[in-house]
Amino acid sequence: MNASSFQPPVRTLMGPGPADLHPRVLAALSRPTVGHLDPVFGGMMDELKDLLRYAFRTDNRLTMPVSAPGSAGMETCFVNLVEPGDKVVVCINGVFGGRMRENVIRAGGEPICIEDPWGRAVDPGKLEDTLKAHPDAKIVAFVQAETSTGASSDTRTLAEIARRYGCLTIVDAVTALAGSPLLVDDWGIDAVYSGSQKCLSCTPGLAPVSFSERALAKVTARATPVRSWFLDLNLVLGYWGGGTPGQTKRSYHHTAPVNALYALHESLVMLAEEGIEQSWARHQAHHLALRAGLEAMGLELVVPEAERLPQLNAVSIPAGIDDATVRARLLNEYNLEIGAGLGALAGKVWRIGLMGWSCRRENIVLCIGALGSVLNDLGAGVDTGAALQAAQGALPQARM
Amino acid sequence: MNASSFQPPVRTLMGPGPADLHPRVLAALSRPTVGHLDPVFGGMMDELKDLLRYAFRTDNRLTMPVSAPGSAGMETCFVNLVEPGDKVVVCINGVFGGRMRENVIRAGGEPICIEDPWGRAVDPGKLEDTLKAHPDAKIVAFVQAETSTGASSDTRTLAEIARRYGCLTIVDAVTALAGSPLLVDDWGIDAVYSGSQKCLSCTPGLAPVSFSERALAKVTARATPVRSWFLDLNLVLGYWGGGTPGQTKRSYHHTAPVNALYALHESLVMLAEEGIEQSWARHQAHHLALRAGLEAMGLELVVPEAERLPQLNAVSIPAGIDDATVRARLLNEYNLEIGAGLGALAGKVWRIGLMGWSCRRENIVLCIGALGSVLNDLGAGVDTGAALQAAQGALPQARM
Repeated sequence: MNASSFQPPVRTLMGPGPADLHPRVLAALSRPTVGHLDPVFGGMMDELKDLLRYAFRTDNRLTMPVSAPGSAGMETCFVNLVEPGDKVVVCINGVFGGRMRENVIRAGGEPICIEDPWGRAVDPGKLEDTLKAHPDAKIVAFVQAETSTGASSDTRTLAEIARRYGCLTIVDAVTALAGSPLLVDDWGIDAVYSGSQKCLSCTPGLAPVSFSERALAKVTARATPVRSWFLDLNLVLGYWGGGTPGQTKRSYHHTAPVNALYALHESLVMLAEEGIEQSWARHQAHHLALRAGLEAMGLELVVPEAERLPQLNAVSIPAGIDDATVRARLLNEYNLEIGAGLGALAGKVWRIGLMGWSCRRENIVLCIGALGSVLNDLGAGVDTGAALQAAQGALPQARM
Repeated sequence: MNASSFQPPVRTLMGPGPADLHPRVLAALSRPTVGHLDPVFGGMMDELKDLLRYAFRTDNRLTMPVSAPGSAGMETCFVNLVEPGDKVVVCINGVFGGRMRENVIRAGGEPICIEDPWGRAVDPGKLEDTLKAHPDAKIVAFVQAETSTGASSDTRTLAEIARRYGCLTIVDAVTALAGSPLLVDDWGIDAVYSGSQKCLSCTPGLAPVSFSERALAKVTARATPVRSWFLDLNLVLGYWGGGTPGQTKRSYHHTAPVNALYALHESLVMLAEEGIEQSWARHQAHHLALRAGLEAMGLELVVPEAERLPQLNAVSIPAGIDDATVRARLLNEYNLEIGAGLGALAGKVWRIGLMGWSCRRENIVLCIGALGSVLNDLGAGVDTGAALQAAQGALPQARM
């Protein structure tokens, strides 16, 4: 077997995630591994849970990172909360709503789907109508920040409607967390999951989740076993704690991904240093600058202004421009990654992420400058100088 | 929120895993993150699959790391191969056989359990009798290296019996891989899973798996959907490849844990540099040295000699000695982690691991020296000097 060490190139990650990792987070990753039952590590786990509560704006005792990527965070919510036969209303306005539907089916539930156009928010009126028509629905699930389209849905309103009809809520906050306002307790969300590699700017592979007491009560009172052993919260909580008030002993369930958890801890410490509201504001300010630059180049955002996410910008690909050529040139000539379209939007849009540490002044300029140069080279005739000027005019003056 | 960076102590890990990470593997972890669909990363993924085939001694095209810990590797095998109603023979001789049984139930299968004493190998005669009595059994599952007891079972013989009765095999090789001979193709194993944090000496959080063509055929021909979306190989293979010969396009399924995969690649490169047979031999040689030292101290191994694993040594705790006191002193005074007993063996044994980079000359001396000193301090009256001498006499002369 003939292989040598892998030396990755140094990219700037402005796609739909992973985002760039701050050097502090990369350094945390390579600290010496300790045992997953080491008391010192247990202390870090407790602090990590507090930091996640801060990020989610919640006091939920069941707040922890699942030892697997965001998709497993989604599955943790569905496989624990959905019992065979449960009716679950799923709001679909992009790829990830569709994935929620799949999760309901595999957990043995019955999905009731509401469709909204890709690139638009979930319509609260349709949710209310659907709940009126299905008074026996038990759960409402939707995506706050649709990573496939860049659309932002109104979690506060949707959760309020769900609660009024006696349903638990499952909210996808993979791209939302730390990039857009998300107030788990104030908005009465019952189960929420995220990913480490978006606006937390950590290495991919971890899925922070938080469950309300109402949600936890449904998990512990299940009549049927959870269909996953690995994700069964009744077992996982024996290790992470949070199942029983005052629990101090940790029992082995699986071997936690020790180094990745160091990194998540560090990225959450950095978030706390910045302040969660400041992080939301930084994403919004840089989004406005990126948008100013893109619009000055004649490019259009897919999502209507009132429903746009700051951290994920879906841009229509101009007529006559080849999607793959542009992305390949940005990657090969500028080490800049932007995202392709997904699902129904494949080939039609680029997805430009401004997530976590990727969301900073110099990256706006790199992205506008490189994209403008490549488009011009392909004959698009854009005024890159004017675009850079427009972006700079909209940029916040303070450096991050 | 008031928290600061976490600085872990520098431990020597001689428990049941995680093992120590080599500095090269730690360095790989903190290389710059690239996108999970970056073509450069795709090249590394292909190399990683080849390296895993080398470690597993297989040509199986479906050979890849699951993006989650070893427990999820186990679940990947069961949730994909077991269909509701399938009879699965599970050989239980420790904690992990019991966990397999749980996995069968949650996948909707019917477990037929064979029990062997903890600390002993699985009895091939009982397996044959059970298969005679259950001609409709579809799968046989067992643990090659029981991490909870240190017992090694005869995978070659068990797999041969299973095949003779028309059953697929699922083999737990979490602790076996790279520490004990494991010949997936020669022995006709159908599905096997491992963990990154044992004898591969990588960070915890990844689960290498390999499936034979027969196993893959059962997965793709399922009448019912796999109960897990995250672990459904029909979907995962769209990203990792291996489902279709000649597949080159990678489609998004979940976001791969990029940095952890760098580390696994590096640890597998190091394994290839050493040679897999040399790695097996190194574990065996150091085990003999550790055993010589332990026996010279009057300590006894739990497992009969012919059934002992080299990489995991369960040692009976001497009468009058408090388990937790000894482990705490080793950890606090020597930064040395050894493992506690698990399940039925809790409080009765210590588990001393010699896995991957933890399996080296200086660690044998540290372990014997520190354990002897602490036991003496507690009045056990052991001759630590003689134990060190015995270990050294048995140690291979060449340094690793």
